[in-house]
Amino acid sequence: MNNSKLDVVGIGNAIVDVLLQVDDSFLDEHKLIKGSMALINASQCRTLYKQLGNGLEVSGGSAANTVVGVSQLGGRAAYIGKISDDPLGRVFCDSMSSAGVKCFMGDAYKDMPTACCIVLVTKDAERTMNTFLGASVHLEPKNISENLIASAEVTYLEGYLWDSLEAREAFKKACFYASKHFRKISLSLSDKFCVDRHRDALRSFIRNGVDILFGNEDEIISLYQAKNFDEAVIEASRDCKLLALTRGAQGSLVVNGDSIYEIKAERTSKVVDTTGAGDLYASGFLYGITHGFDLSRSGRLGSIAAGQIITQYGARRDDDMSQLVEESARQ
Amino acid sequence: MNNSKLDVVGIGNAIVDVLLQVDDSFLDEHKLIKGSMALINASQCRTLYKQLGNGLEVSGGSAANTVVGVSQLGGRAAYIGKISDDPLGRVFCDSMSSAGVKCFMGDAYKDMPTACCIVLVTKDAERTMNTFLGASVHLEPKNISENLIASAEVTYLEGYLWDSLEAREAFKKACFYASKHFRKISLSLSDKFCVDRHRDALRSFIRNGVDILFGNEDEIISLYQAKNFDEAVIEASRDCKLLALTRGAQGSLVVNGDSIYEIKAERTSKVVDTTGAGDLYASGFLYGITHGFDLSRSGRLGSIAAGQIITQYGARRDDDMSQLVEESARQ
Repeated sequence: MNNSKLDVVGIGNAIVDVLLQVDDSFLDEHKLIKGSMALINASQCRTLYKQLGNGLEVSGGSAANTVVGVSQLGGRAAYIGKISDDPLGRVFCDSMSSAGVKCFMGDAYKDMPTACCIVLVTKDAERTMNTFLGASVHLEPKNISENLIASAEVTYLEGYLWDSLEAREAFKKACFYASKHFRKISLSLSDKFCVDRHRDALRSFIRNGVDILFGNEDEIISLYQAKNFDEAVIEASRDCKLLALTRGAQGSLVVNGDSIYEIKAERTSKVVDTTGAGDLYASGFLYGITHGFDLSRSGRLGSIAAGQIITQYGARRDDDMSQLVEESARQ
Repeated sequence: MNNSKLDVVGIGNAIVDVLLQVDDSFLDEHKLIKGSMALINASQCRTLYKQLGNGLEVSGGSAANTVVGVSQLGGRAAYIGKISDDPLGRVFCDSMSSAGVKCFMGDAYKDMPTACCIVLVTKDAERTMNTFLGASVHLEPKNISENLIASAEVTYLEGYLWDSLEAREAFKKACFYASKHFRKISLSLSDKFCVDRHRDALRSFIRNGVDILFGNEDEIISLYQAKNFDEAVIEASRDCKLLALTRGAQGSLVVNGDSIYEIKAERTSKVVDTTGAGDLYASGFLYGITHGFDLSRSGRLGSIAAGQIITQYGARRDDDMSQLVEESARQ
């Protein structure tokens, strides 16, 4: 059992990002608002696909980005999600495997294709996203393996999945196993609108089973309908032992009971694309706390990983990031 | 850092057990009550030693027994304690090392020799113990290494040390580091008289920093001055997330919030000597929870390890116990 110990297992929306270059006229023609994210259905997805041909395909999704980051930092990570038996499903798994993440996807979903996010990149480098959730939200309790949850120091849940009743039950099952094996559960709030839709249920879920809560300023304020960030932090620290809260250029705040650590944001040469900053912050932080780093250094590693990802397009790097771990040792 | 990850680091009274065969007349002559444990001072210790000559020397002490057990089950364990620069100090370290436990003893204590427990074994197999605490209680905060606490999934504290003000500060420092690195602290209550002496301070310490509490029925009832075991369990579960409570022949109870697991005692052919039963229960339980076992199996492994140790004399086995890990898989 010792050899198969994992640092982090992530559970999230298994989405393949399909990156395509388009002209502004294409956006106008399809009434797409530049820079926005829109949910699309299967037929809209097919239509876009047909018109655009093949793009650059790479596995995506918030928790998937996070566990890939953990692996690229040198940690041991696995992933649970739902795909269909189709080419995009295979792209997802291959892309995760080549990043060193073991995938546990259970039975392929039959009634919907694998989720994808068609990312339309215009010449001004803006990204217009169209997400088809497809199979990904049909993650269900039977996908959750007790052995896998038991073998990981931390299980990381992607808040977006809370929209799906099946996935919510899967989260509860993961919490049950984590408790049974005295393992830690972490949750990323993902999105302030998602928090807004499920405020009470999320708060109760956090209070009863989440050991580590990730979120940004907007999300945590929304969760507690607080007047400001400080008030939200006080409320959140009553519900959850450890908070890791990002504040964009203001850095992040790590709260463990009475101990509060303010972490500066990394200075980066140029911000190209903030996609994935929160996901990679979680990678660095989780790598840190599963490798004996103190909470302050774990937060710094989160900031460094986030700082790297925003200097490039997209939420994934191709290379290994283990040199960042050393950087975090410097105060 | 990954390779140096430890399962458990124990902090306790570093005592060398010196086993000697004597006649009943020797006990009478020295006014020793057969079967009892008495604390003796340096000169009493010297006197006994002179009269008895060399005995069988082996490292002992409650937390030391526990981490040796973790190591013999196949886990990675370390130990922090205080010895003097004398032959018994070297016996202690050699004996721990040969059991696979890394010792971090800091500077040798100068004003007192290494602690020892002179165990007088009479022909009827009764053990009469005379403990000289010597250097062991002078464990101090500077002995506690942040790196060591950070690298271990669980730090295990021996309640006996609470009698020493210096050691108590060392415990608090260990808790501070564990919190800083989001690691777990466990405490063994050790002795109901020790609990009785420090009830309020221990309760506050448990409430504020202990994640896993070990104790037997007498100790937990004494801690909460409860009417009975059930009442004590309710009180304790308010103060501490995870309880592992032993009840002799009645087995043990593992309590994690609302989840309660009743673990049967192992049936053993013959009980020879119950010394070390609690220590080895903790070995099995800690091995389990640091290896992804569920709490029920972790408790079973505790019972199995305790069940083995009571069929022999003393609180240590010479051999490896890894076959017991497999046994615990059977319901």
